[in-house]
Amino acid sequence: MTEGLWVTLEGGDGSGKTTQARLLEQWLGDQGRTVLRTREPGGSEVGILIRDIVLHHRGEVAPRAEALLYAADRAHHVATVVRPALARGEVVIQDRYLDSSVAYQGAGRVLEAEEVRGLSLWATEGALPQLTVLLDLDPAAARLRLDAADKPFDRLEAEKEEFHSRVREAFLALAAAEPERFLVIDATLAPEQIAETIRVRVAELL
Amino acid sequence: MTEGLWVTLEGGDGSGKTTQARLLEQWLGDQGRTVLRTREPGGSEVGILIRDIVLHHRGEVAPRAEALLYAADRAHHVATVVRPALARGEVVIQDRYLDSSVAYQGAGRVLEAEEVRGLSLWATEGALPQLTVLLDLDPAAARLRLDAADKPFDRLEAEKEEFHSRVREAFLALAAAEPERFLVIDATLAPEQIAETIRVRVAELL
Repeated sequence: MTEGLWVTLEGGDGSGKTTQARLLEQWLGDQGRTVLRTREPGGSEVGILIRDIVLHHRGEVAPRAEALLYAADRAHHVATVVRPALARGEVVIQDRYLDSSVAYQGAGRVLEAEEVRGLSLWATEGALPQLTVLLDLDPAAARLRLDAADKPFDRLEAEKEEFHSRVREAFLALAAAEPERFLVIDATLAPEQIAETIRVRVAELL
Repeated sequence: MTEGLWVTLEGGDGSGKTTQARLLEQWLGDQGRTVLRTREPGGSEVGILIRDIVLHHRGEVAPRAEALLYAADRAHHVATVVRPALARGEVVIQDRYLDSSVAYQGAGRVLEAEEVRGLSLWATEGALPQLTVLLDLDPAAARLRLDAADKPFDRLEAEKEEFHSRVREAFLALAAAEPERFLVIDATLAPEQIAETIRVRVAELL
């Protein structure tokens, strides 16, 4: 489907996705590539409105409604942001994609992982990135990092640690099921070492 | 699934759904029934936020995103508003439900009617009303009514007449496919005559 390259970053909050996205963007820029940094949820104008409902609504959002809102954000984002950038030959670096939905919703909540995945694939007409970097981190270590950064927690971050352990296991299972697409990296390594591992794989794909 | 009674009203804008919902509510109130009047999209707190995105966002919303947003509104509305009311034994009178999504999205837009219907049924775990009243009206007549009422048009109302003709045909096809659930009424009849036809059917179901 593409002329460009689509890379997604996955992992829990505090695993270093933002740092690695920035380092990869810098390196690609140095190579003269045009880079689009984006994210889900909230990578489009419509998506920002949706993200606001999902993450900051006071009170419960029904589980199926939540899954459908993420899928709606995804449908709009892929159709209006990602696909056009790839068609222009750009490199898209994206913070979270359908693997997050499957890991958080499917494994962590009440819905079947396969249903959540099917919803996302319907939303995007089956679009998958060429590379997904999973920054794997123990939830207790992630908690320490987030505490140190003194960032306010959103609704998902406030869920308890057992939930985050199930999410981590779900991410690792997804990576094991698609070893071609996934690059799993220990997020406790030095940021520059992680960045170099990612660059080696991206260079192969360019 | 229910102890109460769930009635949905369908038809184009200007077909008199609001008038008939009010008349039915009054009559049921006179019978001593507890009535919940609601609508989709926007029948819950979360739904109001979603409705705002779908109907009033400036600029295009990707077709699959739009379908998913309506489904999200529906999932939350049925789970948090409709099912609890039915469980309390109330009569739910609802302006628009999944038939609107199928007619507007499936027949009028780029998506398959069956996909849109499947999405709604997944969203609500298969919930269907006992009665759906279709107020059938020629789009040209509906236009005259809306002009006379001098109401501002939202994005869907502003679509051209040919689109509304396709929607009407889609509604009639849905009614033909489920004659048990649907009551089709000529919306050019006098409001009181329409109300009486609805009351007769509702009385049978109570």
